[in-house]
Amino acid sequence: MKGSKNKRPRLWGGRFGAGMAESVEAFTSSIAVDARLCRQDIAGSIAHARMLARQRIIPAREARRIVRALEAIQKEIESGGFSFSSKDEDIHMNIERRLIRKLGAVGEKLHTARSRNDQVALDMRLYLREEIRSIIGALGGLRRELARTAKRYLTVIMPGYTHLQRAQPVLLSHHLLAYVEMLERDRERLEGCIQRVDVLPLGSGALAGTTFPIDRAYVARLLHFPRVSKNSIDAVSDRDFVLEFLSASAILFVHLSRLAEDMILWSSEEFGFIELPDRYCTGSSMMPQKKNPDVLELIRGKSGRVFGHLQALLTVMKGLPLAYNRDLQEDKPPLFDTVDTVTASLAMMREVVREIKVKKERMLAAVKDGFMNATDLADYLVRRGVSFRSAHAVVGRMVRFCIQKGRRLEELSLRELRGFSPKIEKDVYDYLTLDGAIQRRRAIGGTALANVRRRLKEIGA
Amino acid sequence: MKGSKNKRPRLWGGRFGAGMAESVEAFTSSIAVDARLCRQDIAGSIAHARMLARQRIIPAREARRIVRALEAIQKEIESGGFSFSSKDEDIHMNIERRLIRKLGAVGEKLHTARSRNDQVALDMRLYLREEIRSIIGALGGLRRELARTAKRYLTVIMPGYTHLQRAQPVLLSHHLLAYVEMLERDRERLEGCIQRVDVLPLGSGALAGTTFPIDRAYVARLLHFPRVSKNSIDAVSDRDFVLEFLSASAILFVHLSRLAEDMILWSSEEFGFIELPDRYCTGSSMMPQKKNPDVLELIRGKSGRVFGHLQALLTVMKGLPLAYNRDLQEDKPPLFDTVDTVTASLAMMREVVREIKVKKERMLAAVKDGFMNATDLADYLVRRGVSFRSAHAVVGRMVRFCIQKGRRLEELSLRELRGFSPKIEKDVYDYLTLDGAIQRRRAIGGTALANVRRRLKEIGA
Amino acid sequence: MKGSKNKRPRLWGGRFGAGMAESVEAFTSSIAVDARLCRQDIAGSIAHARMLARQRIIPAREARRIVRALEAIQKEIESGGFSFSSKDEDIHMNIERRLIRKLGAVGEKLHTARSRNDQVALDMRLYLREEIRSIIGALGGLRRELARTAKRYLTVIMPGYTHLQRAQPVLLSHHLLAYVEMLERDRERLEGCIQRVDVLPLGSGALAGTTFPIDRAYVARLLHFPRVSKNSIDAVSDRDFVLEFLSASAILFVHLSRLAEDMILWSSEEFGFIELPDRYCTGSSMMPQKKNPDVLELIRGKSGRVFGHLQALLTVMKGLPLAYNRDLQEDKPPLFDTVDTVTASLAMMREVVREIKVKKERMLAAVKDGFMNATDLADYLVRRGVSFRSAHAVVGRMVRFCIQKGRRLEELSLRELRGFSPKIEKDVYDYLTLDGAIQRRRAIGGTALANVRRRLKEIGA
Amino acid sequence: MKGSKNKRPRLWGGRFGAGMAESVEAFTSSIAVDARLCRQDIAGSIAHARMLARQRIIPAREARRIVRALEAIQKEIESGGFSFSSKDEDIHMNIERRLIRKLGAVGEKLHTARSRNDQVALDMRLYLREEIRSIIGALGGLRRELARTAKRYLTVIMPGYTHLQRAQPVLLSHHLLAYVEMLERDRERLEGCIQRVDVLPLGSGALAGTTFPIDRAYVARLLHFPRVSKNSIDAVSDRDFVLEFLSASAILFVHLSRLAEDMILWSSEEFGFIELPDRYCTGSSMMPQKKNPDVLELIRGKSGRVFGHLQALLTVMKGLPLAYNRDLQEDKPPLFDTVDTVTASLAMMREVVREIKVKKERMLAAVKDGFMNATDLADYLVRRGVSFRSAHAVVGRMVRFCIQKGRRLEELSLRELRGFSPKIEKDVYDYLTLDGAIQRRRAIGGTALANVRRRLKEIGA
Repeated sequence: MKGSKNKRPRLWGGRFGAGMAESVEAFTSSIAVDARLCRQDIAGSIAHARMLARQRIIPAREARRIVRALEAIQKEIESGGFSFSSKDEDIHMNIERRLIRKLGAVGEKLHTARSRNDQVALDMRLYLREEIRSIIGALGGLRRELARTAKRYLTVIMPGYTHLQRAQPVLLSHHLLAYVEMLERDRERLEGCIQRVDVLPLGSGALAGTTFPIDRAYVARLLHFPRVSKNSIDAVSDRDFVLEFLSASAILFVHLSRLAEDMILWSSEEFGFIELPDRYCTGSSMMPQKKNPDVLELIRGKSGRVFGHLQALLTVMKGLPLAYNRDLQEDKPPLFDTVDTVTASLAMMREVVREIKVKKERMLAAVKDGFMNATDLADYLVRRGVSFRSAHAVVGRMVRFCIQKGRRLEELSLRELRGFSPKIEKDVYDYLTLDGAIQRRRAIGGTALANVRRRLKEIGA
Repeated sequence: MKGSKNKRPRLWGGRFGAGMAESVEAFTSSIAVDARLCRQDIAGSIAHARMLARQRIIPAREARRIVRALEAIQKEIESGGFSFSSKDEDIHMNIERRLIRKLGAVGEKLHTARSRNDQVALDMRLYLREEIRSIIGALGGLRRELARTAKRYLTVIMPGYTHLQRAQPVLLSHHLLAYVEMLERDRERLEGCIQRVDVLPLGSGALAGTTFPIDRAYVARLLHFPRVSKNSIDAVSDRDFVLEFLSASAILFVHLSRLAEDMILWSSEEFGFIELPDRYCTGSSMMPQKKNPDVLELIRGKSGRVFGHLQALLTVMKGLPLAYNRDLQEDKPPLFDTVDTVTASLAMMREVVREIKVKKERMLAAVKDGFMNATDLADYLVRRGVSFRSAHAVVGRMVRFCIQKGRRLEELSLRELRGFSPKIEKDVYDYLTLDGAIQRRRAIGGTALANVRRRLKEIGA
Repeated sequence: MKGSKNKRPRLWGGRFGAGMAESVEAFTSSIAVDARLCRQDIAGSIAHARMLARQRIIPAREARRIVRALEAIQKEIESGGFSFSSKDEDIHMNIERRLIRKLGAVGEKLHTARSRNDQVALDMRLYLREEIRSIIGALGGLRRELARTAKRYLTVIMPGYTHLQRAQPVLLSHHLLAYVEMLERDRERLEGCIQRVDVLPLGSGALAGTTFPIDRAYVARLLHFPRVSKNSIDAVSDRDFVLEFLSASAILFVHLSRLAEDMILWSSEEFGFIELPDRYCTGSSMMPQKKNPDVLELIRGKSGRVFGHLQALLTVMKGLPLAYNRDLQEDKPPLFDTVDTVTASLAMMREVVREIKVKKERMLAAVKDGFMNATDLADYLVRRGVSFRSAHAVVGRMVRFCIQKGRRLEELSLRELRGFSPKIEKDVYDYLTLDGAIQRRRAIGGTALANVRRRLKEIGA
Repeated sequence: MKGSKNKRPRLWGGRFGAGMAESVEAFTSSIAVDARLCRQDIAGSIAHARMLARQRIIPAREARRIVRALEAIQKEIESGGFSFSSKDEDIHMNIERRLIRKLGAVGEKLHTARSRNDQVALDMRLYLREEIRSIIGALGGLRRELARTAKRYLTVIMPGYTHLQRAQPVLLSHHLLAYVEMLERDRERLEGCIQRVDVLPLGSGALAGTTFPIDRAYVARLLHFPRVSKNSIDAVSDRDFVLEFLSASAILFVHLSRLAEDMILWSSEEFGFIELPDRYCTGSSMMPQKKNPDVLELIRGKSGRVFGHLQALLTVMKGLPLAYNRDLQEDKPPLFDTVDTVTASLAMMREVVREIKVKKERMLAAVKDGFMNATDLADYLVRRGVSFRSAHAVVGRMVRFCIQKGRRLEELSLRELRGFSPKIEKDVYDYLTLDGAIQRRRAIGGTALANVRRRLKEIGA
């Protein structure tokens, strides 16, 4: 029978009449995935051992030996000298096994007053806290790069789009700063998330707490947790903090995918607004002339991965009875891959934004077509006493006329213009200039240069 | 040809040579969905009109007429006297059309310095701000009900489960308070979300701002917004605030589905831990004896709806170029249905929690089986100097022995116990009692009665 | 206490000591959603009544009265004279209640040998079978329209894109036929789905079958089901057929969203490849010149809705124990909305495809830029004995040279060309023409005109 | 500047003025993921080379050398002697590079008339075709195991549940066969999917076909494809076949998660219906008595992963313009992980089903409580001329009476029974037996033993 020759007894095997089937071992082992938590696992165990000693649950001398041995194991792992085994299921058992091999019965004391249920919750929180901080840093990097690019092309005018149709002229810098606002919200959400990550679960035991007189506040201090979980059943069942991070990442990827889409469009021959340097493009195996914005397409595509991971964990958690269930092991693949995807994509996007070369003249040419001063003309009429709806209708008819004649609004003579509305005077032409269209939009948030300048200053760029 | 006889000109129709095809009208109209925003739309228009007058963009006298007419329209809607028409596409056009019918050219001035793009963003934010506050209230209601039920059954002991296997005894009140912790995090997330909802977008125009000298800060004061959006392109393209609310709702539904699952299990004949009153159950059309916990099943099932809505809007937003695209209209069905589902499910769950009748004796009987004092026995051995791993193994063997013999740990004689470990003394039996198992778990978050009492006090129950 | 005055007894209320709380009634009632199934419910009941009579479970005379009364109810509903009540929970109970009011004790016999569990499964299958057939029809309509448009612009050449960069010239008709292939696969999937929808569940009772000597094969004949379900527990728990339809719809919406995206891009000023007639566009409330392809954006956006519904029902079904659970009621909103969305979007897309006006000259101009004959030039070199990789490299260098000099490949002199490769002869220029690029791609599936013609013929266009 | 020292020129690098940035290389490389396709890539290349020779596009002698070299590379990979490099981006380039290193200019000819776009589509289809066949085999294995277990416990009676409340007695074998029906539908869906996978895309080139006189039908024969794609643009853009497989897998995981849930419930102390052998359970690191059904929980949890992957690829595909975009590279991680997850979970589930030990007596005890003969009693009354609704109401009242008195229906005296309905005669007790309840449900699909036997025979068990 398969697996029956499994010689190495489980650390929890006392109650069992037979070893684990090999197929079960392979199916349930998570070490290939959670080995990534080794540093956190050791840090958590060190803090736990110190607390056990301080509370006289184990002798101080033994705790010191445990701490030293754990530090040695950490070094073994770093140096590649540690061999992880799927026989030992997960990172916790791998390290505990090694510890026991080093220290014998003393090593067997580490797991006093602890369960893997609170241990893995601790590891995950230590890990995610660190990663979110690093992602917040990367977000800042991308925001600064966007701001720097905005400054570099501060006065470049481009068509603003709605429905992918040219709508009104805007500053390219204003457009780029729209993404800065989005990323700022992403930062806020991640800061909120950290607050809920930053809670010590250790001490919750398997689900009910522990019978030993542990000092959770002390462990929290050692591991820099501002808060301690208040309910042991909740603490071992809870993966909200992962779900919240995945949600925040999904929203962040909405932003990255939109920025990627904008730049893919702008890189097309049809738009021709920007160029990416050769070093940031890839070619075709078949077509010798191709130069493709693959990195942007990949960033856009990776939104799928992140949305999928969020859905995955929501599905896992749905309808699970309390407290811990093994389904929770499925939290790690989506979390780890999301962390990697977010981190790599932010870094890559930052480089791309840094490297784009803006073709101002193409943007300027584009902005002259498309009757993008039509709103300004309507607004002019309003200033001359026409109601907005009438002004809108009048200008609509002018546009129709121009399309039929192949002309632009600013090319119509005053006489022609007055044929549409007698309220129009000579000063109308001031309202049809590009610069005017930008500068008049001065209210907070509008595309006027002064606004963009102020905002750049506010965000420290 | 269909639709060509469409007589009623669009308010934006000046530029168009032909009316809209009827099929297009039916396909694009959103009035059936967004009529729900009428109150917010009118409130926003009133603030806008006041600001226009204050800034002398329209005469004060006309603004007053507009405001009065809008108030009248509000009343028409409330009284059911307003007839919404899909000819007018959406709530904004329906109301503006009615206003113009009432006031003529004066009504045509309301839309000065405004676009539907910033208008709908405003309506959505006004709506969601209010709904989140109401949901936070409902969350509080459910938390209080859980706490009240916990107090009512304060000392009832039940099996705590991991992997749906009996694990350690816990207080039912402790189990219920686990949900209080979850709902508390939901509240925190929704509070964070409100901060990002609570930003005024009006004044962003179609995407670039407006040429009129509007005062956005004044509008913000009138509508009680603490913040004003800083970038017009972002303000009309952004649906983060909806996504964040849907995420928070999805996580909340993880909690509701778990609580529903727990109570469905407990209501089964096999568990028999609680009973729902007849008034909260439904019967079968075929089986006369059935009494089913349908409301709990529906709450559990509605998690699908909410997760789906989150994915729906993420998909909509993915890869959209800036700024506004009509795809964004698809934000409303998932948002509105989520608000309704969350609101109804919280209210229903609160009633169910209030109404459950706990069968203490069944819980107590269950807690006596399953060797749930095994951990305590291992802990006892640790106190007697055995390493935890050895203690765990020893007790594992005892459990195996008991299973074979059909006995409980506390039924073994001292002699039998000492056969497994000579460290065991007579005081071991104190460690095998149920009450002891609860009371010894005194560290913060453990299931000891004192902890539950303290936590109830902290949350004001 | 709320709801206690609920006077109307439930049809299943015998075992219950108290009426249903009003809140529970409102929360669990599905009549607002499932009233849509009235026709199917009645058709199923008529078949059931006929079978009961044939098997002498009820007298033939009574069955005739039941059938006539059900037909009358059908007419009441059609004429708007039937008033649905949430007191009666769902469509089944509404109709049974009305029947009993009409016929008294005779009406009380209809539900013999039946449960709502198999009844609703029947209604859903009758409904979906019909809707899928209608959707397959609509798919055919869109495919024919695409083929017709392909024929209309049979020889128009446009840039083929990869990575949204111009790649190789293709026929517009070839591009449009790509969508015909996709829709053909959608049809295949839906045909497969119908086979699994088209199975009679009635006769499965609540979950175990029925004690009456029913004739399921006879009911299947009456309702035109080729298959009868083989396991009663499965038959009442199964919603695979809905999930499969939602999956097929999601994939279909991938196609619609891509076609919408293509046409949105083509409608932009930058591409300028097609124009939509005014009647199929909408304007802006603020910008008088705007003409937006809203219908295409909405179709693209509605992909979110359909993907979300699929995830919703997957979530609902995950981990449900057998057999029927009330969670299953949550299958209807996603199903019904998907049917409506698919139906409306296919019809709308068909109209749009019919109405687009292709601007051939813009397409042709675009195809001349971008070195789209580079692959053909490499292929030429291969024919002259150069290995493909070397040929690719040589042409790559030529392109780089041309970019620097602002020239096209076909503009280089033979001397210049030979400077890159001495294998080049005068006949090279034949390989650089547009028409040649199209005509040479003659292998099955290539863009050559002959291929497009053959494919159009194959699909009967 | 990072990456500028990148010495190894890209195979497509002719047009590029600078090497690829290292960060871009790392970000875009897919070799870590797609190395899994090496066997398919080589098989496809061999068929391609043969066809090129047959069509005299390359000399037969050179094709033979290419084929031999590719076979040698295959062996290098199998023996672990091949070192994949992310410098070469993907599996295609890694193998082509190695080939060129072996054969020089001859190796440079392999990629004639081919693009990576049609090459990767081919690899994916070859891979998935094989995997689906293997999964269909595994499905068959699980179905046979379920049938075998059903036979082993053929006559064991258990409570059938609706709403997780006891409903009617069913045979355990009937319950298990419900899953056989589900898996049979999964097989049908996968067979349908294979038909759409089994189409040759090679020959579509980058998107437009190729200028060489290739013979696609010959390649199809070599690689055993019954169909050849009909449109080159579609063939390189299409990932329907992956989406369809992911959908079918998601539905399959609905079934696996439900079966897991059933068995987790049955393994609980409360149900106590089955026991898993120690070798298929895991213990707790803290609680010595625990024996947990982890494998079932993991299978249930893995539904999240699979649903997420489906959503991921739907998101990737949404709104992509034709033809190939690099986003498509994101198809591989969800596909590969789904294949692995489905394969492992089917195998594991089969072992679990094989190993469960059914505790008949617990099932039997459970079936006696819960008034599970109430429907049969109502049916009895119908046979005595009472209308079903009245019969349902009468039995409902009897049940209420029994609950109050703590009795079972079959324990009531004839006199008591007749107090509820004078139609009741002595033969009623025959209708209240368990065996009768099973045997009377004889109509197709009902739980009667004869039905289960017939169905087992039909499926060849």
